[in-house]
Amino acid sequence: MSAPARLDPTVYLVTDTRLCGGPAGVVETVRGAVSGGVTAVQLRDPGASTRELVALGEALLALLRPVGVPLVVDDRVDVALALGADGAHVGQSDLDPVAARRLLGPGRHLGLSVSTPDEARAAVALPPGTVDLLGVGPVNPTTSKADARPAVGADGLARVVHAASAGRLPCVAIGGLRTQDVPALHAAGAAGSAVVSAVCGTPDPEAATRSLVRAWAEARSATRAGSAR
Amino acid sequence: MSAPARLDPTVYLVTDTRLCGGPAGVVETVRGAVSGGVTAVQLRDPGASTRELVALGEALLALLRPVGVPLVVDDRVDVALALGADGAHVGQSDLDPVAARRLLGPGRHLGLSVSTPDEARAAVALPPGTVDLLGVGPVNPTTSKADARPAVGADGLARVVHAASAGRLPCVAIGGLRTQDVPALHAAGAAGSAVVSAVCGTPDPEAATRSLVRAWAEARSATRAGSAR
Repeated sequence: MSAPARLDPTVYLVTDTRLCGGPAGVVETVRGAVSGGVTAVQLRDPGASTRELVALGEALLALLRPVGVPLVVDDRVDVALALGADGAHVGQSDLDPVAARRLLGPGRHLGLSVSTPDEARAAVALPPGTVDLLGVGPVNPTTSKADARPAVGADGLARVVHAASAGRLPCVAIGGLRTQDVPALHAAGAAGSAVVSAVCGTPDPEAATRSLVRAWAEARSATRAGSAR
Repeated sequence: MSAPARLDPTVYLVTDTRLCGGPAGVVETVRGAVSGGVTAVQLRDPGASTRELVALGEALLALLRPVGVPLVVDDRVDVALALGADGAHVGQSDLDPVAARRLLGPGRHLGLSVSTPDEARAAVALPPGTVDLLGVGPVNPTTSKADARPAVGADGLARVVHAASAGRLPCVAIGGLRTQDVPALHAAGAAGSAVVSAVCGTPDPEAATRSLVRAWAEARSATRAGSAR
């Protein structure tokens, strides 16, 4: 698969090197997630040196390229470009999305983290084609991100999704999400769940991923059944 | 001055936000250094968020552009590009220099940190035009960099300069350097001294910079007088 501007965020794994027990653990976790049906992977390791990040990214690309699962790099647009990854994800403290898009060019995916309807409206107001996806959260309280903001809950997520819909920007929910959250995320209009600790550091990343994939399929199928009535 | 591939590293200030007492202190320090005759500035702040780094870089460019002093960004090639800075500097744990050059394009400066003759020889063996300058050190013990290697001394510097000369790569010394070190650095073949704590956090950054500028002028003039004999 060549760089998809719009990746499928249904089950979007964000890696955590510490939770996975080191870079080799990240590779094994991603391998399991791929077997479980993960739809996209984001490489996130703010504590790594640039060279360590590139090395880990190369190992993940070797796994993901053959199966067509896109790899996105958190914050480091230069690392995304050096790797030839499928895109980058920036937060409100990272590179400005317009600058990130300029560096990435038009072909790659760019995600942006937002927490509030105002931030979603600001994303909608960006030049068309700047951002492909909003990461919305934290929905639940999270321990994976030291500087995370207060949890917004499913209601807060729904408000952000509504604000983003004006720009047809899909939203992936993030922040302490488990399988049992999926129906509420789906009801709030999220296009998927981004997960860290639901998969990283669990005894069976493949089963954990599969459980999320199944929950999304069921939530969508329930909606379709509901609309058919 | 447009992006110079070969900057003048005679007195090369590497910023330290903590030593300067915060971003505003960095700006004031660089302002003083410019008045004192600094020849190049490197923005280094591994603890800053990407957005903070960009904001500080913009403030420094506003000072440096009008006076033609180049600004180089440590490690973050994406930030260098987003800023339109004059180049980037990578260490042995940062982006591979070939990848960094590919991202920077041919017009901008690229520096590389080395500590040993072997690392200098590896730099010489890179494709021509990859690297413009080697940062060699630490010459003296340093407290500005948490992960610094053991000090190489003026003798170690001279050995690296010799190895780099095969590729005509100029070397700037770094690591705990003061004005009184300049004659020995010059004798070892360095093209300048990169300084952090000799300027950042001092009561008078302008005077500290001027003292270094004068020491380099005197060392070079003594050599010329010596060769004229």
